[in-house]
Amino acid sequence: MYASFIDDVREKNPLVHNITNIVSAHFSANGLLAIGASPFMSNVEGEMAQVAKISSALVINMGGLSQGEVVAMIDAGQAMNALAKPVVLDPVGIGATPYRQEKGALLLDKIRFSVIRGNAGEIAHLIGIKWQSKGVDAGSGETADLAKMAKECAKKFNCITVLSGQVDYVSNGEVVVAIENGSSLFPKITASGCLQGAICGAFIAVAEPSEYFSATVAACASYAIAGEQAAQGLQDFEYGQFYVKLIDCLAKISADEFNQFAKVIML
Amino acid sequence: MYASFIDDVREKNPLVHNITNIVSAHFSANGLLAIGASPFMSNVEGEMAQVAKISSALVINMGGLSQGEVVAMIDAGQAMNALAKPVVLDPVGIGATPYRQEKGALLLDKIRFSVIRGNAGEIAHLIGIKWQSKGVDAGSGETADLAKMAKECAKKFNCITVLSGQVDYVSNGEVVVAIENGSSLFPKITASGCLQGAICGAFIAVAEPSEYFSATVAACASYAIAGEQAAQGLQDFEYGQFYVKLIDCLAKISADEFNQFAKVIML
Amino acid sequence: MYASFIDDVREKNPLVHNITNIVSAHFSANGLLAIGASPFMSNVEGEMAQVAKISSALVINMGGLSQGEVVAMIDAGQAMNALAKPVVLDPVGIGATPYRQEKGALLLDKIRFSVIRGNAGEIAHLIGIKWQSKGVDAGSGETADLAKMAKECAKKFNCITVLSGQVDYVSNGEVVVAIENGSSLFPKITASGCLQGAICGAFIAVAEPSEYFSATVAACASYAIAGEQAAQGLQDFEYGQFYVKLIDCLAKISADEFNQFAKVIML
Repeated sequence: MYASFIDDVREKNPLVHNITNIVSAHFSANGLLAIGASPFMSNVEGEMAQVAKISSALVINMGGLSQGEVVAMIDAGQAMNALAKPVVLDPVGIGATPYRQEKGALLLDKIRFSVIRGNAGEIAHLIGIKWQSKGVDAGSGETADLAKMAKECAKKFNCITVLSGQVDYVSNGEVVVAIENGSSLFPKITASGCLQGAICGAFIAVAEPSEYFSATVAACASYAIAGEQAAQGLQDFEYGQFYVKLIDCLAKISADEFNQFAKVIML
Repeated sequence: MYASFIDDVREKNPLVHNITNIVSAHFSANGLLAIGASPFMSNVEGEMAQVAKISSALVINMGGLSQGEVVAMIDAGQAMNALAKPVVLDPVGIGATPYRQEKGALLLDKIRFSVIRGNAGEIAHLIGIKWQSKGVDAGSGETADLAKMAKECAKKFNCITVLSGQVDYVSNGEVVVAIENGSSLFPKITASGCLQGAICGAFIAVAEPSEYFSATVAACASYAIAGEQAAQGLQDFEYGQFYVKLIDCLAKISADEFNQFAKVIML
Repeated sequence: MYASFIDDVREKNPLVHNITNIVSAHFSANGLLAIGASPFMSNVEGEMAQVAKISSALVINMGGLSQGEVVAMIDAGQAMNALAKPVVLDPVGIGATPYRQEKGALLLDKIRFSVIRGNAGEIAHLIGIKWQSKGVDAGSGETADLAKMAKECAKKFNCITVLSGQVDYVSNGEVVVAIENGSSLFPKITASGCLQGAICGAFIAVAEPSEYFSATVAACASYAIAGEQAAQGLQDFEYGQFYVKLIDCLAKISADEFNQFAKVIML
């Protein structure tokens, strides 16, 4: 059910358009190549609608958020919406500043998203829950019911929601799936959340709309398993080597490995 | 004939100005340092003509292509032309969108290039051949005569042309050289083409105009040999480690190694 | 005296705002995470004063220097000044072009810096000494008295000055400390100076103003020790592996290791 999406990404090699920031651009592009997609990383205003025509999914990462980038995001998102192609939102640090709150709200108003992927602090902001975030990091909040938060966000925005963390929660607004794979090294490398969002884009790029939920679960579990494998044999301070091995393991993961290692639990 | 350029780059440590994008900037700068050049990565509009005065070669990478970047590229390119210093064009994804086609044509109209370096899809676009590209990736076309394409592009734009791929073809419009070194891991890491273009810049930076062809062949063969050595001992999914070892091997390559391993064939 | 700052950074996990360039953004963010800080890498004009409210230190890296970035730097710097929070300047290539000279002077006029961190060529420019720089690299000059240069810069701008190189010199304008740890591989990887500046930001973020000098010495020595350890077992051409291991060693360094290995000499 889930594992076959890995083969589909590798076979179809979908063009994934990723509007992202100067921190994550290189890492996300390498990760997309490793999972089997073809990254297109343009944030050039004039070509957004043109890129929509050739790409199979769009990932909007709010890390960089200049006026020009916001215009490009809206152009690209609306073009994809018009073509009925899927769009992922990664609301990086959306609660951190009033500016980010405003631009995030604008994007959510102008674009219809198929998937929203954020950490607990970002999802908390989206559903109006009080949360102690720190910049772009997840922070800690008053409630431990992360699964419920994922479900509420999915309902509110009528889209799949991924709430990432030690356990990832994925909801379509009706059910919630917990993914218990992963590694404590993930939050130690920058842009690990950005790449997770990009990988979601690669998987829904090869899925039918009715399969977006399954494809998103498959994306998050594949990514978490790759991280689990990358961390094997590493000491807990080897962040640099984790970064390198994560790319290796994304390139290595197969449907067989998925079926063997995935800890995907319907809650 | 070719190998001595490696020593020249190391001794002269040329300042290479590289206008590039958010995906490749870090990797290209590291690769330029590894081969022995001094990278200057500015794309700031106001200083392009000033940078031309202190640099020995300019590499224009079309990956990022905002209005401001296009203005900077033209300023920088024309300043280098006026100083009779060499300019390399890397026409990233030039056929992918009408916007890129238009801006690429503008750059080719306004600037005289010493070297154009692209994959098969990009070179095909430049000479008006039908080709099935996918975004910034090479894709596949109807003709297998890649050597002929390189030669035609070199003639049309009156400059050295590198058509990169499993085998690299380098032409000056009259003859074509095939470089049969390399690794199947090259297309698996993002910006490997961007760095090849940057390395071409480092080599022609230390060459006389009459040597640009030899210097470009030397650059491409050195890069391909470094990739070949980087891939040794790696499994075919170890993209992350290839990325790291490629930098090591660029820093290691010597004139002796070049003479021992280069598979440079005059067609 | 110095070593405890390492524990403080790890415990307080300070939010460090880093306005930087497309070359160093990913590396600097990873390095900040490794040392225990929380990086916030925005250079978006509209949110600079808002980011100042939530961050504990600001690092302005002059690598990217578009008109918009300069406006953002001044907004951010003045907001931090108004809040009496520390600001670090990394004057990348400040002497390389008239444009950089002008913008650098503007930043120094508009913002009060707690720390300036540059290589010999950059510090030489700041105090009006003739120096043979090459682009953003250190180059070589007519005087070997680097300690004196650091002291003079500190006096002139009334701030801590780090003059980095084979030996780092840190001065508060009255005394100079030499840090004799390090590795010859540091100048072989791009943005190693940028990351040093970012690490200075992380350390002064957890210090009182009266401790900024000690905190800066601690930052530079920690970074140099990490580099020393990263280079252990590497051959002199293994730049790529050094880059990866440097992140590992930054994540590993402890107060105990600092006390064991630091070669900090009051001149």
